[in-house]
Amino acid sequence: MTLTEGTKTGNWGRWGDDDQRGALNLITPEAVLAALQSPKRGKVYSLGIPIGRHATPDVHANRPYPERLTLMAGADAPMYQQFGAAPGVGANEDLVFIPSHAGTHMDALCHVYADGVIWNGHAAGSFTPAGGAGRCGVEHTGTIAGRMVMLDVAANQGVEMLTPGQIITSADLEATRAAQGVEVRSGDILLVRTGWLQKRLAGVPESGAEAGLGYDAVEFVRDHDVAVVGADNAAIEAFPFDRGVFLGVHIELLVKLGVTLVEHLWLAELSADKCYEGFFSLGALPVTGATGSPVNPVVIG
Amino acid sequence: MTLTEGTKTGNWGRWGDDDQRGALNLITPEAVLAALQSPKRGKVYSLGIPIGRHATPDVHANRPYPERLTLMAGADAPMYQQFGAAPGVGANEDLVFIPSHAGTHMDALCHVYADGVIWNGHAAGSFTPAGGAGRCGVEHTGTIAGRMVMLDVAANQGVEMLTPGQIITSADLEATRAAQGVEVRSGDILLVRTGWLQKRLAGVPESGAEAGLGYDAVEFVRDHDVAVVGADNAAIEAFPFDRGVFLGVHIELLVKLGVTLVEHLWLAELSADKCYEGFFSLGALPVTGATGSPVNPVVIG
Amino acid sequence: MTLTEGTKTGNWGRWGDDDQRGALNLITPEAVLAALQSPKRGKVYSLGIPIGRHATPDVHANRPYPERLTLMAGADAPMYQQFGAAPGVGANEDLVFIPSHAGTHMDALCHVYADGVIWNGHAAGSFTPAGGAGRCGVEHTGTIAGRMVMLDVAANQGVEMLTPGQIITSADLEATRAAQGVEVRSGDILLVRTGWLQKRLAGVPESGAEAGLGYDAVEFVRDHDVAVVGADNAAIEAFPFDRGVFLGVHIELLVKLGVTLVEHLWLAELSADKCYEGFFSLGALPVTGATGSPVNPVVIG
Amino acid sequence: MTLTEGTKTGNWGRWGDDDQRGALNLITPEAVLAALQSPKRGKVYSLGIPIGRHATPDVHANRPYPERLTLMAGADAPMYQQFGAAPGVGANEDLVFIPSHAGTHMDALCHVYADGVIWNGHAAGSFTPAGGAGRCGVEHTGTIAGRMVMLDVAANQGVEMLTPGQIITSADLEATRAAQGVEVRSGDILLVRTGWLQKRLAGVPESGAEAGLGYDAVEFVRDHDVAVVGADNAAIEAFPFDRGVFLGVHIELLVKLGVTLVEHLWLAELSADKCYEGFFSLGALPVTGATGSPVNPVVIG
Repeated sequence: MTLTEGTKTGNWGRWGDDDQRGALNLITPEAVLAALQSPKRGKVYSLGIPIGRHATPDVHANRPYPERLTLMAGADAPMYQQFGAAPGVGANEDLVFIPSHAGTHMDALCHVYADGVIWNGHAAGSFTPAGGAGRCGVEHTGTIAGRMVMLDVAANQGVEMLTPGQIITSADLEATRAAQGVEVRSGDILLVRTGWLQKRLAGVPESGAEAGLGYDAVEFVRDHDVAVVGADNAAIEAFPFDRGVFLGVHIELLVKLGVTLVEHLWLAELSADKCYEGFFSLGALPVTGATGSPVNPVVIG
Repeated sequence: MTLTEGTKTGNWGRWGDDDQRGALNLITPEAVLAALQSPKRGKVYSLGIPIGRHATPDVHANRPYPERLTLMAGADAPMYQQFGAAPGVGANEDLVFIPSHAGTHMDALCHVYADGVIWNGHAAGSFTPAGGAGRCGVEHTGTIAGRMVMLDVAANQGVEMLTPGQIITSADLEATRAAQGVEVRSGDILLVRTGWLQKRLAGVPESGAEAGLGYDAVEFVRDHDVAVVGADNAAIEAFPFDRGVFLGVHIELLVKLGVTLVEHLWLAELSADKCYEGFFSLGALPVTGATGSPVNPVVIG
Repeated sequence: MTLTEGTKTGNWGRWGDDDQRGALNLITPEAVLAALQSPKRGKVYSLGIPIGRHATPDVHANRPYPERLTLMAGADAPMYQQFGAAPGVGANEDLVFIPSHAGTHMDALCHVYADGVIWNGHAAGSFTPAGGAGRCGVEHTGTIAGRMVMLDVAANQGVEMLTPGQIITSADLEATRAAQGVEVRSGDILLVRTGWLQKRLAGVPESGAEAGLGYDAVEFVRDHDVAVVGADNAAIEAFPFDRGVFLGVHIELLVKLGVTLVEHLWLAELSADKCYEGFFSLGALPVTGATGSPVNPVVIG
Repeated sequence: MTLTEGTKTGNWGRWGDDDQRGALNLITPEAVLAALQSPKRGKVYSLGIPIGRHATPDVHANRPYPERLTLMAGADAPMYQQFGAAPGVGANEDLVFIPSHAGTHMDALCHVYADGVIWNGHAAGSFTPAGGAGRCGVEHTGTIAGRMVMLDVAANQGVEMLTPGQIITSADLEATRAAQGVEVRSGDILLVRTGWLQKRLAGVPESGAEAGLGYDAVEFVRDHDVAVVGADNAAIEAFPFDRGVFLGVHIELLVKLGVTLVEHLWLAELSADKCYEGFFSLGALPVTGATGSPVNPVVIG
């Protein structure tokens, strides 16, 4: 599978040859204002799962575990007294050591490359070890706000979790959408629920197979001009990969269409509340040149 | 200065003796729904400043520099071929090593202690080096959404930056509020602009003196039942500390009132647009037991 | 078990009340010169095991995995050209994130405390999170050279590995010493082989039980005025702890006697060569205030 | 400057085409045994400088600061009580975050590349961000023992510190050797003192110019078949680079000759004692695939 084998062209050049934001350009101020009208109850949802060495699932062989490390604690209080602090006064501080792709996280548009290029045809070589991303670093896409639509495919198919390895199709997404009675609009943040993360955090061991989007579902994303795709699985797409193509759906969505991806989303509460529309916002760490960021998206339902 | 010297009592017990969320309890679903009506233009603002060793200001002696470290880059592509990847296909990944209190960040309610206690009288000793925060970790307060009011004190006083060391009073805040023609309501996220961060990022060296809130301004926060206070300076409060009390305003706001603090906010664009009201959301890294988090708050104006 | 329950007093005060080096004081220049005469063949042994996330065994719940992280690689070469580098010229660099007690490592004398004190009665509180060790940091004991005696207890008992949980006694050590025909002298570095690490690195899973020194063996160490004790197990002492006392032998050796400990030693090659005497040297990372250090001791046999 | 421009060939192939140890092959067991006879006094020297964020000099733009971070301290003692620990018993532990090339450190033979190759013609591309060094990682050269000769060029030229930028020649080394009355033998570890590090740690600010070896001195190293070159400066070679060639002497010594380099050595005490010969040992952290290691070499004089 290569970029040139695609049967349809992607979004390259659509927002100019220099563009580094991709489909986020679809979220207009009008769309943002409209999105603010989606919430009905004013309930605030956090879509990020707990971060900690033992709490965060799915450490890949090349991703270290996230660690919280203490910098200062109560026993350091005397240190402050040289600055005039009263006894018993001080600050606790710590530090986080965390892969950009640990736990609930977003992929910057520089994350995946194919045929030597990233989104919009920018050279994959614009990312270097010391320099980070010269193009499409997370600072370009890490601030997102707009209308969320959550398609609860698992609930619509009457299961707690889709079958491991199941390929979600456009028809699956459309059937869920129709059953839920929601529209999908240009610039939407589309979240897909497979049920996987709930099982995973409940202790079901990693099997190496996960339900997720396949090539066919890419049509749904493109046809609706979705800006962001998120899911409650590890990689949006299914494992094993659809058609056996390594990162094939990442290549379609991230590289060809410029669609930002958000993974390991906690959708359990939205599902329990049957909250299918809302206002979505996400503020990634603006680490210059980073390939992604752990995130804690906030949804108002 | 100790807790018992305060002339007025704080909010301890107001939301129960076990409460770990403090004044965030003031943000009701109704307040959230009302806040969604604040934005007029649908413009999205990012309040987080760039993160990087050379980009992020104000490294204190006990806080390491933030670092982006590469995990995988183009030269690793052959590694993926054992999993069936086509040549030229792969993923760039990296990792962040970052103090919770680096750059734009929020303070968890466990951050500052006085007289051996944190917010609501929880024992300061509930934070330990290995265990982190047993009480009031950032997981309790890291998801925030509500109405923002930005008081541009610098602009109202006709200066680019307030005088280093200037103590901002309740009268200063009220004068700015009145001049801007905005209300401050219960549960608001109150942001105060001093002009400091713009000067700092423009290369003005650290002088050790900053304008910020003093004891008098604490009245304004309490009287309006503000939920969160943010500012474009390093510590909300002034340096040198008002009345010479080490972390005195932190003790008033964070420890006594349970008001969450957000520091190093980038308020330049809101100021330029004279955007004084908006919808504010913040999703901190949900690191279990952490003392704070770098954040990238999103405002819709 | 407390310090005062010991039937014999330790070495506190023996080298002055301010001493921070403990039994390393026993290694005199004369002992060093004599030790240089031990080697017969000029063979160089490395006693450190490989360090890497997947290579280093025994990650405890509170110790992160060691990680090697790349800082610069070939794709960064163009960066050097601004400094006049020719094309194709550059440097690969990396970074290590490693617990002081990961893999083959030494314990500083501040590592273990009992009854609120460390070696020589220094206050345990002299170690703080931000400040590190105010007393007995690894900078005081991290440079060691002297005579090594290796007692191959496993070989002497005719087994590949001692029974998990087996308590090694003074009689076991003496029997091995006599069978090997070696002397143990004041100031020696005494290494004890249980066979455990070879099994562990060969893939035998962690069982939670390990052979190691018990209280009785402490007499052997004290009676011979040994300066350092090392072993090829995780903690010198047996698991479960002898007499059920948590870190009991650490308290005897490290806290009471001031004997430096070195753990996870790779003794397989010394054993294969029946090399029981040699010249030992160790240069720990001189991290100011650290509680220990990963080490790669060098033995000449 | 490229490899093919050299007027003399290096050591490639001398120890086989697969060799990854370079000139360390020159240290025979006989040389080690002879080296053990060098020390006259039994004095132990540590050549490593203190490691800490504020202690370690010369942080380059691409190297983070070294950090000691606490994992466990006294306030965590109650955690141990679930394992049966008595009150007041526990362990202090920490972690080090440190560039391989911070402070006193050694360069692995994969560190510098030129014309797309490292030592012995191995491909520079054998080092990748995720994989580290496939060839010539520090695990191949990190255990060193042999005879040290220290040439105190600064003392021989009657200065505390050589002139910043001064190019040390073979004649300078030979004059020092003769004046000191020492031999240089095949397989020796050759240390060169410029006086720079003492000035640097005493607070003399970094000027960007340092005395160090130039091309001419490479002849001395090669003619004497030296195994290791160390110095008390930042990069063995002079800054600005001799002949203006970026890393030119690294290319000659590390890439062409396979000579291991050790930098930022603390030679002040050897100089004060006029100790010019001794037994040298170094045990680098055996981090698989690393480009170097912080080290604390031990010398017996």
